[in-house]
Amino acid sequence: MLPLKIIATGKALPSRCVTSVELDVLLGKPEGYVKKKSGMTHRYFAEETDHQSELAAAALRDALTRQAIPAASIDLLLSATGVSEQALPSTACRIMQPAGLAHGIPAFDINASCLSFLAALQLAASLLNTGTYKRIAIVASDLASRGLNWDDHETSLIFGDGAAAVIVERGDGRTGIEAFRMETHPQGKALCEIRAGGTRRTPRRGADAEDFLFRMDGRGVFRLAAQVMDRFIALLFAGRPFGPRDMDIVIPHQASHLAMQHITKRLGMPSTQVMNIYATHGNQVAASMPTAVHEAMVTGRLAAGSRALLIGTAAGLTVGGMVLVL
Amino acid sequence: MLPLKIIATGKALPSRCVTSVELDVLLGKPEGYVKKKSGMTHRYFAEETDHQSELAAAALRDALTRQAIPAASIDLLLSATGVSEQALPSTACRIMQPAGLAHGIPAFDINASCLSFLAALQLAASLLNTGTYKRIAIVASDLASRGLNWDDHETSLIFGDGAAAVIVERGDGRTGIEAFRMETHPQGKALCEIRAGGTRRTPRRGADAEDFLFRMDGRGVFRLAAQVMDRFIALLFAGRPFGPRDMDIVIPHQASHLAMQHITKRLGMPSTQVMNIYATHGNQVAASMPTAVHEAMVTGRLAAGSRALLIGTAAGLTVGGMVLVL
Repeated sequence: MLPLKIIATGKALPSRCVTSVELDVLLGKPEGYVKKKSGMTHRYFAEETDHQSELAAAALRDALTRQAIPAASIDLLLSATGVSEQALPSTACRIMQPAGLAHGIPAFDINASCLSFLAALQLAASLLNTGTYKRIAIVASDLASRGLNWDDHETSLIFGDGAAAVIVERGDGRTGIEAFRMETHPQGKALCEIRAGGTRRTPRRGADAEDFLFRMDGRGVFRLAAQVMDRFIALLFAGRPFGPRDMDIVIPHQASHLAMQHITKRLGMPSTQVMNIYATHGNQVAASMPTAVHEAMVTGRLAAGSRALLIGTAAGLTVGGMVLVL
Repeated sequence: MLPLKIIATGKALPSRCVTSVELDVLLGKPEGYVKKKSGMTHRYFAEETDHQSELAAAALRDALTRQAIPAASIDLLLSATGVSEQALPSTACRIMQPAGLAHGIPAFDINASCLSFLAALQLAASLLNTGTYKRIAIVASDLASRGLNWDDHETSLIFGDGAAAVIVERGDGRTGIEAFRMETHPQGKALCEIRAGGTRRTPRRGADAEDFLFRMDGRGVFRLAAQVMDRFIALLFAGRPFGPRDMDIVIPHQASHLAMQHITKRLGMPSTQVMNIYATHGNQVAASMPTAVHEAMVTGRLAAGSRALLIGTAAGLTVGGMVLVL
């Protein structure tokens, strides 16, 4: 087991709660259309004046406050977002001041799309075990609403904005990561994307407004994920004295109601053991998984000694899973 | 010492070489203007049809070929760019196919602006030492030319495009990282930036063409870097049985001729011991440091048993340094 201890979690949501009924009206659809199509009652959207880094900082302050941890004791900040705040510099360095962190600690970004938090957690555990740092804050924040194409109901209705933070230490070795696996299948790289924002499509090179919006081939994602998932789960648990059914709780990336049903079925888990905050948060991109971890902690579903499976898919296409002992 | 062994390096440049004399003509300046202002004879710029991920893949293939390493033996790809190829998904997943890597290995991005490679190298060493992976490829590629503002000669003349790759293993413990330190000073977060490209400024939110271009307050960067550098160097070497003068070679981020002169002076090193490829490459953002490492390797300036100091500053403002034993 790779030692790791979660010593605090926190979350933040923008103030504007948008119900599916409100969206029915906005989109000129009959009442119930958005709820049926998305599987959600409501989600939270950032106001025009909100900043992604400030939402991230609010989540981190929440984690610090809940466990009375001094901000100055954090010695590394990892920002784990799906889409960053700007092209340069990192989102992490923009979070430090609003979060009240000490100037001079290092801060940088990890990006594995919706699984950025999972990648960052494994990296943090490795850094703590080599003694590079003692207390690391991982913050994931995403404002999906900024890139939604409201003409495309398959992609626009399932997202919500949000941020969550987890603070970790090495611990005494009784808690940690029992299994970790991540796979990227690049034949899926164009199935979910925002093509502008970097060096590929820029206004000077003829990028149009649509290049800045999220596009998804939902059927293609489902087909590729279904194709690789069984083998992925088998390899994640290969040689371990436990299987999916030995998990106390499964915390999946909250991709969509259909994706979560699918992964639950593949794992052979009863849905009562699956952490599901999707109906009230939506797919919050990289913020989904740490938000679900936080909700599992504060509701007592993740307690000392629990064994949890974190699992999900991300644009790339990346599949990731981790068995955590709390 | 944190064990780490560099088993291969490689680089790639776009085919178009642009001399400073050509730029004099393009900008309507007298011959010698660009060379004097930039300190460079030439740099390489991507063609309109070039992709950042393909340049990265070329650098990685170069590293694999030079040491006859099978592409299929790489078990993690880290992309360490300053500016990514697009907003979503990661640049890493776009590099896998052109580089010929095995489908199913994980691939994700690390972003610490110009010091992304340094951050990724420390992360890779930690992952190798916890046994998470056995052979990691780190690739840095940047196409600064895509975001240059040609009306601003202070920022546009010093950059060049490029990519470089390093392949690392844990090794037998006789080589590795003897010291590492990174600091982020967020009061400098707006001194170097591209404000668009993420959730902050988008066309829908009124972003203009300039928001997609690199902006720098050069005087501000210099002032902040000068203010923190002496303390940073002292802390990097604190408690170590060696100092800057015990280094066989210094490999700085190739920020600009003035920045490199400044850092050499602060370290008290003769300029002959400083790896300088700036005049023929320019500031290649995150690709600069691994390109300089590669050039030091192939020219024999970095040989087995050498002790090298990698050091530099990045947008953020981040300062980083690492003592490597080869």
